[in-house]
Amino acid sequence: MYIPIILGTAREGRESEKVARFMLEKAIEFGLESEIIDVRNFRHEATDNTKTSDQARRFKEKVLKAEGLIIVSPEYNHGYPGELKMMLDMLYEEYSGKPVGICGVSSGVFGGARMIEQLVQICVFLHMVPIGEVVNFSRVQDLFDENGAIKKESYHDRARKFLGVLTGYAETLSCGKDAKS
Amino acid sequence: MYIPIILGTAREGRESEKVARFMLEKAIEFGLESEIIDVRNFRHEATDNTKTSDQARRFKEKVLKAEGLIIVSPEYNHGYPGELKMMLDMLYEEYSGKPVGICGVSSGVFGGARMIEQLVQICVFLHMVPIGEVVNFSRVQDLFDENGAIKKESYHDRARKFLGVLTGYAETLSCGKDAKS
Amino acid sequence: MYIPIILGTAREGRESEKVARFMLEKAIEFGLESEIIDVRNFRHEATDNTKTSDQARRFKEKVLKAEGLIIVSPEYNHGYPGELKMMLDMLYEEYSGKPVGICGVSSGVFGGARMIEQLVQICVFLHMVPIGEVVNFSRVQDLFDENGAIKKESYHDRARKFLGVLTGYAETLSCGKDAKS
Amino acid sequence: MYIPIILGTAREGRESEKVARFMLEKAIEFGLESEIIDVRNFRHEATDNTKTSDQARRFKEKVLKAEGLIIVSPEYNHGYPGELKMMLDMLYEEYSGKPVGICGVSSGVFGGARMIEQLVQICVFLHMVPIGEVVNFSRVQDLFDENGAIKKESYHDRARKFLGVLTGYAETLSCGKDAKS
Repeated sequence: MYIPIILGTAREGRESEKVARFMLEKAIEFGLESEIIDVRNFRHEATDNTKTSDQARRFKEKVLKAEGLIIVSPEYNHGYPGELKMMLDMLYEEYSGKPVGICGVSSGVFGGARMIEQLVQICVFLHMVPIGEVVNFSRVQDLFDENGAIKKESYHDRARKFLGVLTGYAETLSCGKDAKS
Repeated sequence: MYIPIILGTAREGRESEKVARFMLEKAIEFGLESEIIDVRNFRHEATDNTKTSDQARRFKEKVLKAEGLIIVSPEYNHGYPGELKMMLDMLYEEYSGKPVGICGVSSGVFGGARMIEQLVQICVFLHMVPIGEVVNFSRVQDLFDENGAIKKESYHDRARKFLGVLTGYAETLSCGKDAKS
Repeated sequence: MYIPIILGTAREGRESEKVARFMLEKAIEFGLESEIIDVRNFRHEATDNTKTSDQARRFKEKVLKAEGLIIVSPEYNHGYPGELKMMLDMLYEEYSGKPVGICGVSSGVFGGARMIEQLVQICVFLHMVPIGEVVNFSRVQDLFDENGAIKKESYHDRARKFLGVLTGYAETLSCGKDAKS
Repeated sequence: MYIPIILGTAREGRESEKVARFMLEKAIEFGLESEIIDVRNFRHEATDNTKTSDQARRFKEKVLKAEGLIIVSPEYNHGYPGELKMMLDMLYEEYSGKPVGICGVSSGVFGGARMIEQLVQICVFLHMVPIGEVVNFSRVQDLFDENGAIKKESYHDRARKFLGVLTGYAETLSCGKDAKS
């Protein structure tokens, strides 16, 4: 089961990259095929925003192949990063019916909770299936050691629970497709 | 397939009742078992808000039996009616995994679009599956004749499309349950 | 300067009452005239939702007199309590131009952060001026001792900062009114 | 009174540019000093997201000078354009206390209503004062003639009402500043 991880910030020094790497490790442990889709590699220049760009085409291939998506994103001023929104806006019908799980990241105590609320609205109306189970990575700057290992043990369980719900939906929704075919 | 319709306003003179009756008619035409769950009949007194009240018990029975939910609700000041929120807050895990479709109602031109955005957040975190397909009933005061028949023909098609997506999800999600059992 | 505190939950055993009492104490220390407007005393029966009810009339008097509002409210399922929304929906133009500060309450770690996001949308479109400064009361069940005294010292400073911003806006906005008259 | 207009989309063929030009014309008629701040001219490259970039510095100068802001933005998938969010995220305390009015644009019938809801949350927590009065430009592709003149007369009145509320807040809030100094 291929469920890639969208890393939603392009900022230099982004802590969310550590979270994405942690989630990738957990996804692979969980038996998934996964990879990080880094928003840095899917950015448009200035006015080049057609849905037929090279970036859009490469992103499309991955989304079409995916049985679900994980989004790892920080919260900027209570919303999602602009570069994440620009990337999501490149596609439309490709998302339809795919479950999506969101991991919020912040340097404060809310772990991206408000960003997740806004992102959920976007996802529903892109006809994705956002799961109610989320993981909030709070005080991310203190959460990983110098080797990128997570210091709070409880995140291992949270990640597993999150992946359990997400893959449960992925299976259910693909079972529906099999039944129809 | 039992998919009841929650009528989310208790106000006297509510126009949303006409919309709920229209959707009930369409649901039955579509082959569904349905009924209107009127928030007027599930209201708590003052501080009586336990999850074990008679109202909560009756609502719970219906939700547990349902393979999906339709919510018909007006928008009040960009949000959902308080009485609808009080009713939804009576239950929790009973909603899990059920698809929900929202019909927005307003006297203006937006057909409850902003209420739907807020309600979608509530539904996702109650672990429901809100569908991206919605129906907006705008200028509702002019939309029905004196017999309650809808005057704009296009709503018949919109309702059918909405019910198609909603029942599609209901089937898919129950297929998942069958496959697991 | 009269700035009352709306207590937005009617539930039995509500912890938010302790928060409202704490904020009342701080408001009085701050030199404000204040009181708790308890949603329990402003609730409508069933379909009695006209804007001319006795409850609406009493609430209206207080809002018209107020130079600002504080809302203390828990978060239920990522949204605001229904009874709070029903109360706010009783009035409309009376709110116009008044600053409002929101204190979120929760038993978890987010202190009502997501409820605040939804409530801010309601307040802006009721033409209030919601301030960006908020106070989040997290793990409220552990926050007060048996005498209702707050155990975390930092909340005294947070409340003062919040009241400073709120009264700053109240003064500025009334200065505007004086200038016009 | 300097109130510039932020044009929030960089897409080729953007219809919102016509709306921004219309609003600029109305603002000047209204006696304001104004100009269009085009997001195309304030875009960051890849990972260059520091708050000290040349773009950030130029944007900062304008915001500091402004007594209020107008944002003209389309709605993409129920949210704001990514490039607008990236631009807003360049600054922080510079926005504090400034009134902001939002004009929503869409090719459908909702005139950006849902984007406005999300943007209001961002603005409040950037400590701006978003006004409840908004202008929704629906079916924008049919709204202007080939010379860029608006075809629906009512928008002239709507724009004037919007500017009246926005400048009223700008005056009131600066009156507060004068009174303090």
